[in-house]
Amino acid sequence: MSLLTVGTVAFDTITTATAKAERVIGGAGSYSGWAASFFHTPVNLVSIIGEDFPQETIAEMEARGIQTEGLERVLGKKSFFWEGEYLADFSSRTTHATELNVLADFDPQLPQSYLSSEYVLLANLTPAIQKSVLTQIGSSAKLTVLDTMNFWMDTALDELLEVINMVDVLTINDEEARQLSGKHSLMEAATKILTMGPRYLIIKKGEHGAMLFSNDGIFSCPAIPLAKVEDPTGAGDCFAGAFLGYIAREQSTSFDTLKKAIVYGSVVASYCVEEFSLDRLKSLEWSDVEARYEMLVDMMTV
Amino acid sequence: MSLLTVGTVAFDTITTATAKAERVIGGAGSYSGWAASFFHTPVNLVSIIGEDFPQETIAEMEARGIQTEGLERVLGKKSFFWEGEYLADFSSRTTHATELNVLADFDPQLPQSYLSSEYVLLANLTPAIQKSVLTQIGSSAKLTVLDTMNFWMDTALDELLEVINMVDVLTINDEEARQLSGKHSLMEAATKILTMGPRYLIIKKGEHGAMLFSNDGIFSCPAIPLAKVEDPTGAGDCFAGAFLGYIAREQSTSFDTLKKAIVYGSVVASYCVEEFSLDRLKSLEWSDVEARYEMLVDMMTV
Repeated sequence: MSLLTVGTVAFDTITTATAKAERVIGGAGSYSGWAASFFHTPVNLVSIIGEDFPQETIAEMEARGIQTEGLERVLGKKSFFWEGEYLADFSSRTTHATELNVLADFDPQLPQSYLSSEYVLLANLTPAIQKSVLTQIGSSAKLTVLDTMNFWMDTALDELLEVINMVDVLTINDEEARQLSGKHSLMEAATKILTMGPRYLIIKKGEHGAMLFSNDGIFSCPAIPLAKVEDPTGAGDCFAGAFLGYIAREQSTSFDTLKKAIVYGSVVASYCVEEFSLDRLKSLEWSDVEARYEMLVDMMTV
Repeated sequence: MSLLTVGTVAFDTITTATAKAERVIGGAGSYSGWAASFFHTPVNLVSIIGEDFPQETIAEMEARGIQTEGLERVLGKKSFFWEGEYLADFSSRTTHATELNVLADFDPQLPQSYLSSEYVLLANLTPAIQKSVLTQIGSSAKLTVLDTMNFWMDTALDELLEVINMVDVLTINDEEARQLSGKHSLMEAATKILTMGPRYLIIKKGEHGAMLFSNDGIFSCPAIPLAKVEDPTGAGDCFAGAFLGYIAREQSTSFDTLKKAIVYGSVVASYCVEEFSLDRLKSLEWSDVEARYEMLVDMMTV
């Protein structure tokens, strides 16, 4: 009855049209683990950090039920670092720096206690590492979710396709779905991607919500209309973490459960973008999550 | 218990990446009237045509319950004509020609039988004409809907703002909502536009569906995911026509009715784009409409 997430635990420097955050905590592992922990613990975190990563943040994670036995610290080296800048309307971003640091040699060996993880999130990371984790987990997994991005389609497509073929759920954004399938229509893109292995495809559309495609049907979830976005970094990771966290809590992989999980994923993502880093997640209460869940359900009730 | 729509009845020449349609029937009045007639008749059409417009099409309209007493024909002149070309992904279009022809001097005088119209659609047209029609109808209107586009924001903003302030419902697309409000966030844009007069704002987002904003709440309706789009021309007009047609049929302007009306609007728009001109609407059966209505409701049921 445990959930595992593998992804970066790192530092980000982020510039938006109105503010800048320097070397704040980021990474797909941080965001997805934190988001999942609202719904289900323990969260078995798999990642790697350098000597520079604050012990205080690790203690905060542990206090939330995020297990860090699989969080490897390399002394004498630095944590993964990403620096980027968003356009004023957040429609695109420019990467100014990517320092792999400890990530360059990351080859995770899962702790014994992680090997029975039933719900597995392969958050955005090198496809080779995602595959290694999946292989170590083996057949204990009840639902495997792969999050990825266009960068891996450009640089490691063959390895990525191999992992895509091994998982139950793939989550990507609309442009990535078009790139992966070579089809412009999202309906045609989804039909094609569902022949590549996954039983479920989630297409994330930012302010336009998210769609779930499967042979069981299609579900469309709107996004919470937000008056202000501070920083969209981590929204997709939070979505995936909350999505799988809810499924782990419900102990169900039915289509109905997946639909509700998408609504919860959208809710946590909508809070994440209101502040930099994990700041909004840290102040988030369960009652906040429930309030926006009700709001979203209300928005789609005809 | 009658519905009125005013908009162009015209010819279009349309080029897409895969096909071209020359001088086919188009115009906001044609599309919106035809769409409305699936739900409610009579539809009181107000428009102007030249000597070149086929009598056969007028006969087809009349056979569907579209009244053409307010459709003025000017002998010796030509009908309004628009020629445009779409990008392969339909994300934008270029206008190659706009010939106003009869539209240049259009100053509609509503027939006596139209003056008691209760549901009024001011389809995309010069704001001055929209205002004239609204003024002639006066207080008999139970719900007035204004559809417009960026062209009028660029060229006749003051007159447009005046008409916006007179209607109950405004329908525009997301870019137009941003332009009209000067706000990027759709939530902020909607909040501002709702201070300009209308009680309801519908933001059309193409493949991402449509949203209804009001002081009664927010409703988000997905679009039917289509494998193939032949020609998006008229989708917004069909949306508005079906929306108001459903409301006229239900004789209700409650928020719940408006939500269902948006779903029906999305359904008829989704069929419209499958073929050029009115072609798909002409072969459309009521059972087709109901099938996609059920599909959309299913897609948003959590």
